[in-house]
Amino acid sequence: MAAHTDRQYEEELTDLRQSILSMGGLVEKQIAKAIEALVQRDRALAETTIEKDAEVNALDVAIDALCLRLLALRQPAGRDLRFITTALKITTDLERIGDRAVSISERAIELAAEPPLKPYIDIPRMADISLGMLRQSLDAFVREDPDMALAVCRSDDEVDKLNGQIFRELLSYMIEDPHTITRAMRILFVSKYLERIADHATNIAEMVVFMVKGQSIRHTSVPPSV
Amino acid sequence: MAAHTDRQYEEELTDLRQSILSMGGLVEKQIAKAIEALVQRDRALAETTIEKDAEVNALDVAIDALCLRLLALRQPAGRDLRFITTALKITTDLERIGDRAVSISERAIELAAEPPLKPYIDIPRMADISLGMLRQSLDAFVREDPDMALAVCRSDDEVDKLNGQIFRELLSYMIEDPHTITRAMRILFVSKYLERIADHATNIAEMVVFMVKGQSIRHTSVPPSV
Repeated sequence: MAAHTDRQYEEELTDLRQSILSMGGLVEKQIAKAIEALVQRDRALAETTIEKDAEVNALDVAIDALCLRLLALRQPAGRDLRFITTALKITTDLERIGDRAVSISERAIELAAEPPLKPYIDIPRMADISLGMLRQSLDAFVREDPDMALAVCRSDDEVDKLNGQIFRELLSYMIEDPHTITRAMRILFVSKYLERIADHATNIAEMVVFMVKGQSIRHTSVPPSV
Repeated sequence: MAAHTDRQYEEELTDLRQSILSMGGLVEKQIAKAIEALVQRDRALAETTIEKDAEVNALDVAIDALCLRLLALRQPAGRDLRFITTALKITTDLERIGDRAVSISERAIELAAEPPLKPYIDIPRMADISLGMLRQSLDAFVREDPDMALAVCRSDDEVDKLNGQIFRELLSYMIEDPHTITRAMRILFVSKYLERIADHATNIAEMVVFMVKGQSIRHTSVPPSV
């Protein structure tokens, strides 16, 4: 067991923590830029955001490789084993959040080609909350803090509420004037992508609780959102 | 290394393969029942499908525990290590497909309370293709067959095309008669859920290629769908 406590091993674990936070920071920036491209009707920004997704994918591959190396060479057990396997799962969530930055950018490009429907108020707010949840879930992961993770799960309701509000507002636009339908649908999709980011953050938080406490809270958590 | 080749270890790996296929079979049935509940306007079936999601979650927890036990006690390397860590990631995808069966059932309940909009033709077809992709991706996993996995990635285009077709058809309904908007949106969400199932199947297939070949095909695959 000596190898499990040596300095190099600790450095590798710190490296893994740092890499997860870096990847989290990158996808967070990607989502923020996609939302900015949407609000500012900035086609060029949307396009560079789409291109930058390759960096997210590269990080995903690199962190997975780091996790596999740790599992193969260090043969961890107990808490370390759960930490590394949770990291493996989290990279998948982060990679898919990155994909949503691409989807939002695509909708931003489409919407920039049509007249504006209305100023964006709830969408940036929803993005802020979702990204806050993501940040907090990753903090909970690196600190192995289940209470912080549970707080993330509770925020999910707020996002679902905002999503419902956006849905009803867009619906009223569509019913009043069918010319707005295509645009309203695209905005609705953006709201759905943001809701999925909050879902990913909630999933990460649930995994952190499982990692630390060794028991699943899935049955007691809020049901999956639509 | 003797422990890595003994019979009990082989049995545990077979057990893991079987468990992944069982969980895949269960979520497949869940989606099929949710779609049946939608088409038949069967509220009771939708409700039992939602209840049965607890079984999917329980399997997720059980398979994760099996993977962790294998990693801790058998300390696998190389191909076995990649197999087990891929299994860990696949359970997450399967669990989220299970969540989509819940979402479809919820929409089925809402739609059953309103007059029917039109007969469902493309939705069941899209469900068939997505579930076929899921089955094939899991077969590719247990057989460790990258060619079969690559075939799954190619089918994703077909689902995206059907999704686009459903979107345009529903759009024309909404534009013609704003009274159909709420119902059309709910059907559109179902189509989105099915598209996500195809995305999960594609993700599983990509992971299988990575598992067998040790290299990522993410950069060369089709871009994430909307």
